[in-house]
Amino acid sequence: MRPGDVRRAARAQVLTGPTAGLAPGFAQGNLVVLPSGVADEFHRFCELNPKPCPLIAVTEIGRPHVPSLGEDIDLRMDLPRYRVWRDGDLADEVCDITHLWRDDFVGFVLGCSFSFEEALMAEGIPLKHVRSRTNVSMYRTNIACRSAGVFAGPLVVSMRPLVAADAIRAVEITSRFPAAHGAPVHLGDPSQIGIRDLSSPDYGDAVDVASNELPVFWACGVTPQAAIAQARIPFAITHAPGCMLVTDLAAAASTTHRGCTGPRPPQGNTDR
Amino acid sequence: MRPGDVRRAARAQVLTGPTAGLAPGFAQGNLVVLPSGVADEFHRFCELNPKPCPLIAVTEIGRPHVPSLGEDIDLRMDLPRYRVWRDGDLADEVCDITHLWRDDFVGFVLGCSFSFEEALMAEGIPLKHVRSRTNVSMYRTNIACRSAGVFAGPLVVSMRPLVAADAIRAVEITSRFPAAHGAPVHLGDPSQIGIRDLSSPDYGDAVDVASNELPVFWACGVTPQAAIAQARIPFAITHAPGCMLVTDLAAAASTTHRGCTGPRPPQGNTDR
Repeated sequence: MRPGDVRRAARAQVLTGPTAGLAPGFAQGNLVVLPSGVADEFHRFCELNPKPCPLIAVTEIGRPHVPSLGEDIDLRMDLPRYRVWRDGDLADEVCDITHLWRDDFVGFVLGCSFSFEEALMAEGIPLKHVRSRTNVSMYRTNIACRSAGVFAGPLVVSMRPLVAADAIRAVEITSRFPAAHGAPVHLGDPSQIGIRDLSSPDYGDAVDVASNELPVFWACGVTPQAAIAQARIPFAITHAPGCMLVTDLAAAASTTHRGCTGPRPPQGNTDR
Repeated sequence: MRPGDVRRAARAQVLTGPTAGLAPGFAQGNLVVLPSGVADEFHRFCELNPKPCPLIAVTEIGRPHVPSLGEDIDLRMDLPRYRVWRDGDLADEVCDITHLWRDDFVGFVLGCSFSFEEALMAEGIPLKHVRSRTNVSMYRTNIACRSAGVFAGPLVVSMRPLVAADAIRAVEITSRFPAAHGAPVHLGDPSQIGIRDLSSPDYGDAVDVASNELPVFWACGVTPQAAIAQARIPFAITHAPGCMLVTDLAAAASTTHRGCTGPRPPQGNTDR
């Protein structure tokens, strides 16, 4: 399937589940939709914390389109599943948000780790959570994000166990994906970043770390969701876990786009 | 000092010691001079083991010149100090090898870690052995090099202790220096590569690894010297430790050159 095929399947509600592995080679993105009253502060939060929050596009106010990621994209229906948040609590999960869309909404698309995981596997680096078909292990750290207005909170990381030679190659490979969290933020001793027990992740599923493996930690897209929940924003919409926006951007070429709100349309690799 | 100034100082025997820190920004190289009878096998050994033996130039038989690294270079006198080896044993240390040069000699110049160490320090990554003005710690590993003819032996590695965040950045930075040993070959548990005791290096000086640091291991230019000693080559000449050939190549742009023996002159970045 090409990216447009995946989006059309989601729009038709034929696809209502995770997008992992669909349209390989193309960047997928996390979605955050916020009212314009807090959008500027969230935009600034992303810019201050680019490793967990790599912005790849921001919509104009009230517009559900992101032509820089695909001419036909409509953020209200092109993701398989959405989560609706009220006062920081999960309120609903839906497959279309057209009925909820408002003229003051701003959509943020953030790069996600699917892009670099695909590249790691293509280089022969085994990912245990993919093999076991579980979610990646995620942890809240003692590293504070830089705050912006109401948005603040800890850096959340994902962890993948790798033998040392693979860890080194994984650093080399993922550093080429700055719009998909980039190089790891830590490896080795988890206690150095405030993680007490690797076998009890805060999100996702536990995975065994063998004696010849190092835990390798990457900044994680759950970070902005945790900041939104902590800020108890009255109304917000995000993608549902694993149910991403599949874009027309090549995963490997994806780079962080900045300052793309306001009157200018978002600028991207595929702008025509 | 520019690279040519350093070479002229060595040629005049004003400079007779280490070249570390001289002509910053320019690649320095290890030297190996061998009779043509074993030169082809050594060339192949380097090509089979590019991380410890990153060839940046090979001379034509009997010629002491390497125009790809600097038009005026004469390998017989442009290094501050040389070591002469007979049957694999150190026989002499001299500042000029003109009187020893023979028509059947082939010179090999290999990239060295000075280039990436300079880049690491420029990025604010502290190197303990530089601060303490001691030699880097080096160890024989249980990783066998790929053999070529008489040349074989273990991979020798250098070790630098770094905190995790710096280790990750060091992988990113040194991967851009393929002609200076490139990215590390291992990090973390030394026993996985056959090193029993970090405090007893096989070459160089011991350095303390703090509890919040990881030992990070790079392939080391002592590897080919160990192979030459092990092969008990009747006659060979190398640079003396730390007394390198300073080239006109930019350190950051240095890349591995291959297949540059034979009738073609060596090809390099600065060829005119």
